[in-house]
Amino acid sequence: MARGCLSLKKQKVSNAVVGRLPRYFRRLDELYTNGVVRISSKDLGSSMGLTASQIRQDLSCFGEFGQQGYGYNVENLRREITDILGMNRKNTAVILGVGNLGRALIQNFSFARSGFTLTAAFDVNPSIVGSSINNIPVYSIDRLEQYLEGHPTKVGVLTVPRGEAQSLALRLQAAGVPGLWNFTSINAALLVPDMVVENVHFSDSLRTLSYHLSEGKESS
Amino acid sequence: MARGCLSLKKQKVSNAVVGRLPRYFRRLDELYTNGVVRISSKDLGSSMGLTASQIRQDLSCFGEFGQQGYGYNVENLRREITDILGMNRKNTAVILGVGNLGRALIQNFSFARSGFTLTAAFDVNPSIVGSSINNIPVYSIDRLEQYLEGHPTKVGVLTVPRGEAQSLALRLQAAGVPGLWNFTSINAALLVPDMVVENVHFSDSLRTLSYHLSEGKESS
Repeated sequence: MARGCLSLKKQKVSNAVVGRLPRYFRRLDELYTNGVVRISSKDLGSSMGLTASQIRQDLSCFGEFGQQGYGYNVENLRREITDILGMNRKNTAVILGVGNLGRALIQNFSFARSGFTLTAAFDVNPSIVGSSINNIPVYSIDRLEQYLEGHPTKVGVLTVPRGEAQSLALRLQAAGVPGLWNFTSINAALLVPDMVVENVHFSDSLRTLSYHLSEGKESS
Repeated sequence: MARGCLSLKKQKVSNAVVGRLPRYFRRLDELYTNGVVRISSKDLGSSMGLTASQIRQDLSCFGEFGQQGYGYNVENLRREITDILGMNRKNTAVILGVGNLGRALIQNFSFARSGFTLTAAFDVNPSIVGSSINNIPVYSIDRLEQYLEGHPTKVGVLTVPRGEAQSLALRLQAAGVPGLWNFTSINAALLVPDMVVENVHFSDSLRTLSYHLSEGKESS
């Protein structure tokens, strides 16, 4: 079994492979939705800007790798990656901060398609506390701990002003929330050593676009 | 000079290295802001979850690489990466779609810190057309082509409903805009073969968080 083999769940998977897993999922999900039954590593790679050998190395434990000429069964491989990404674990999330970005996520982002249920939102603004947005209740941030005690939650989504991020992260941690999805793009990392933090940096993406524009190359 | 050397601007830089450039920039910008003058590849690596040898390989053309024990000059390396990312080219952008997400970007995202000037926003909603948000004028989408003719623009930011994305991408392309920063997370890729497209997939980030939570590992 190859090094970095993904189905050895306990084995350390390289960061580079982990970084590609959501892209594999998206592509396989699209193929599956379109009724594609199987795909060769060459075709999967060319649609993702990867070489066939890179695909084969990343996915070396999946499907009919031994049967040259068959390729991957799309449904099986999609299911395996769903499992590895932990997307079938009925995760729950709450969102902190119902400004423009928080509202955009509540109204337009499908948490379900990543295996999450968004259960509540919190804000300080009295004009929205007590309302619902897209069937998600908006509570006062003062009720955060009380809510979390009754509703074990896997991820706190931070869409608050950046000055609020650190103290709210600590409150989430103290209330037993293990994960943070942080949109506040603060400069220094949040100091919550025992939490799993995923930071969204819009600037990384715009700078990547800037790079490809200045090189005249295609982005992905 | 090493393979993949970044200062050979014309040479193909691997996708993996390109993907790390904005992270290098962020880290170096933070160090620079904090007054740090130089940093070893070991320290730079450990703060980014990379090995010293990976850092050295990525940045093999920069600074005092030959002077073992010195490390990198933070200001110089930051300037080099700014240049490679094309962040000093006075790029311009317009934003299409002033819903929650568009408004969040106009109000809270610093285009300037990625070398961009946001010049205008476009929408169909008569209640906001003619207004300004954060000093950015909001025009009717009917005036898009007229505006672009007088204001050459490098990037169109798509924060419209996903059903509008393809036709607006084509209009931007026809008007000579070379780049798209696409937040509409449509399933299939936009069909604008001659444009440089950077897609923002919030779901990739949430699924990465899901992976690390199910593995009990730290994300980055």
